[in-house]
Amino acid sequence: MDFFSQQFIPTSRQASRDAEAVSHILGFRAGLFFMLSAGIYSYLPLGYKVIRNIEKIIRKHMNASGAQELLMSALQPIDIWRKTGRDEILKDVMLTLKDRKGRELCLGPTHEELITEIAKRYTKSYKQMPFILYQIQTKFRDEARPRFGLLRSCEFIMKDAYSFDVDEAGLDINYQKMYEAYNKIFAECGVEYVSVEADSGAMGGKVSHEFMIPAEIGEDTLFYCAACNKYFGDIEACPTCKGKLHKRTMIEVGHIFKLGTKYSAAQEALFLDSSGARKPVVMGCYGIGVSRMLSAIIEGNNDSRGIVWPVSVAPYKVIVSILNDKFKDEAVKFSNALDERGAEVLIDDRPESPGVKFNDAALIGIPYILVFGKTFEQKGKVELEIRRTGQKHEFELDKALNYLLEQCDAKR
Amino acid sequence: MDFFSQQFIPTSRQASRDAEAVSHILGFRAGLFFMLSAGIYSYLPLGYKVIRNIEKIIRKHMNASGAQELLMSALQPIDIWRKTGRDEILKDVMLTLKDRKGRELCLGPTHEELITEIAKRYTKSYKQMPFILYQIQTKFRDEARPRFGLLRSCEFIMKDAYSFDVDEAGLDINYQKMYEAYNKIFAECGVEYVSVEADSGAMGGKVSHEFMIPAEIGEDTLFYCAACNKYFGDIEACPTCKGKLHKRTMIEVGHIFKLGTKYSAAQEALFLDSSGARKPVVMGCYGIGVSRMLSAIIEGNNDSRGIVWPVSVAPYKVIVSILNDKFKDEAVKFSNALDERGAEVLIDDRPESPGVKFNDAALIGIPYILVFGKTFEQKGKVELEIRRTGQKHEFELDKALNYLLEQCDAKR
Repeated sequence: MDFFSQQFIPTSRQASRDAEAVSHILGFRAGLFFMLSAGIYSYLPLGYKVIRNIEKIIRKHMNASGAQELLMSALQPIDIWRKTGRDEILKDVMLTLKDRKGRELCLGPTHEELITEIAKRYTKSYKQMPFILYQIQTKFRDEARPRFGLLRSCEFIMKDAYSFDVDEAGLDINYQKMYEAYNKIFAECGVEYVSVEADSGAMGGKVSHEFMIPAEIGEDTLFYCAACNKYFGDIEACPTCKGKLHKRTMIEVGHIFKLGTKYSAAQEALFLDSSGARKPVVMGCYGIGVSRMLSAIIEGNNDSRGIVWPVSVAPYKVIVSILNDKFKDEAVKFSNALDERGAEVLIDDRPESPGVKFNDAALIGIPYILVFGKTFEQKGKVELEIRRTGQKHEFELDKALNYLLEQCDAKR
Repeated sequence: MDFFSQQFIPTSRQASRDAEAVSHILGFRAGLFFMLSAGIYSYLPLGYKVIRNIEKIIRKHMNASGAQELLMSALQPIDIWRKTGRDEILKDVMLTLKDRKGRELCLGPTHEELITEIAKRYTKSYKQMPFILYQIQTKFRDEARPRFGLLRSCEFIMKDAYSFDVDEAGLDINYQKMYEAYNKIFAECGVEYVSVEADSGAMGGKVSHEFMIPAEIGEDTLFYCAACNKYFGDIEACPTCKGKLHKRTMIEVGHIFKLGTKYSAAQEALFLDSSGARKPVVMGCYGIGVSRMLSAIIEGNNDSRGIVWPVSVAPYKVIVSILNDKFKDEAVKFSNALDERGAEVLIDDRPESPGVKFNDAALIGIPYILVFGKTFEQKGKVELEIRRTGQKHEFELDKALNYLLEQCDAKR
């Protein structure tokens, strides 16, 4: 339970002049992040709560799939990239530096080479596989044109997982596990998403799937059949209903790859199989853009008043607006009862006008807005607004408590 | 509940040749971390569990003190450092780079300048203070001689907090809050520690306290009176009992500073006070070396057999060793009962000899070692070893469960 008057939530009416995307504009206005310089962002407390909620959902499903969390270094000697030739392929987007001893380093834009070095050091026998490792970590990219806020920035948070198997059959199993975990993650984050087979690009490997969220500012395009609610590649009509397809631009938020032995062969990450033969380990890699998700969720969840967070990732589940200080004790007691049962509450106790409070509550997108105002004075009832639908209800306190606990638990 | 056979815990008999400190040797042998290049470490799953436990304790006490979590960028334009002149003062340890547009950047070795820019942007009035912001983040240092593993590395995890007040009286209150939170954090981490007034060095400001942990490889020195169990600076005899003092080397794990207006004045982070006058905000900063804590805890908690984790930070609370596969079902059922009540269990189900299992259990330092072996077959009892004391008990299953739940809860 937090008090708005004490929280660092710098809302504002105006966004930065450079903000183009709706997520960028609303992110600034709701005080989610701070831009120090083009493409370089800090997450302010409200924005970071959302990031941590997304991370929690990711960890839950990664751990349930048997993946183990580790944390690799951001600094990487460029040597390991020379083994795969990706020091050249990714040259343009790689931030490089030298330390005081002249050691050539880069800031990892991704971690296939490093994780392969770890597997190479420790994985000597087929008996040690299969396993999946993952991390949630800050990555770096020298963007030619940083834009759209967190969607294309120079420093961003990724979840990257890597699977290790003795053969392709094992990879198929782990790939499927990750595919299913990804579906659970995006579903629980409350976003409309679609998964499609995709090109493997600079990652190499044969099979890959992208997970995408529809958004006006997306950089990928799919074709959508509204009647069948299905997405397709570049074809003219829906193969099911023959209806016309509509272009929809999409943001990529996840990408999974069957890498095979591209990295393990180049870096000589070899193991002894059951017949005693030396073979390169068979790998897959699985990424989610965590900070990008924050923006992608806003792109798909907003209206003219501001952000509309899905309950699962909302920084607070309920905002309790106190319109008169004489209701404060009761409002705090009520909020406490909600909060200690796991429905986080932000109490708007600021000495501001009701208009400012309503606008801020709508702007920062808390799913349930509860008002202790005139109705409470006159009828002993609180007004509850469901942010997404705009529906309003009047509740007695005990009924409001039960209703909110049910809504917040059901969706977590 | 995890199965050792499926976990990525690469224990070994030998450490890297370069390992000097006991924490470094044991960290390698227990499979806590991986060194890619001098001073550049990745945390493997077991080590990262400990890091996450330390972070959890830090977050708990930071949040309880009213501090709010955010996450700042690692990349920082060098411009903001020029305002305070610290681009020169910290030149030797700062990793710097240029992006494709020639923008001069550094990787933050600390974040006073950046947080001051954030305060400057949003904090315009005395009404918006006081507040404390903190982050848990990766920092970078171009170490002249990286050594002792995580104790002096080029990339490390820090908790850094910053307080903002209208005057010195406010700073005193926030400083005291942080001082008390620090005492709770180090106590809960289960380490012997001491806090001493210290020199403020490159941070500036007037008052500072260091939090230190005794360790052979420490780089600071204090004088210790065993009779009074007190630490002192460079004096000859204990002022209380007049007894002789012994030198003890210490590792610095925390440092808190009253910065005053050093940064806010230089960067013009100004606010309007209640009389309408423009003044620089009054700041404090508060650091804890998170990854350094991992090593410092090992330095103070080990024996000839390996690490001895305090329960609060242990990667698992209990290791259940199955010496015969026919006990597996019962052992798993028992472990599940423990684990779902919050006492995390690692089940050693590997097809290894009892000797290998005992050695690994002791090496990785799990507080309670439970054996399903001969005693279970003959008497229906499990053997429980308390890792720290070496004491052994025989328990019936229900008594073992109650005992372990009590021990693990009591210390969490």
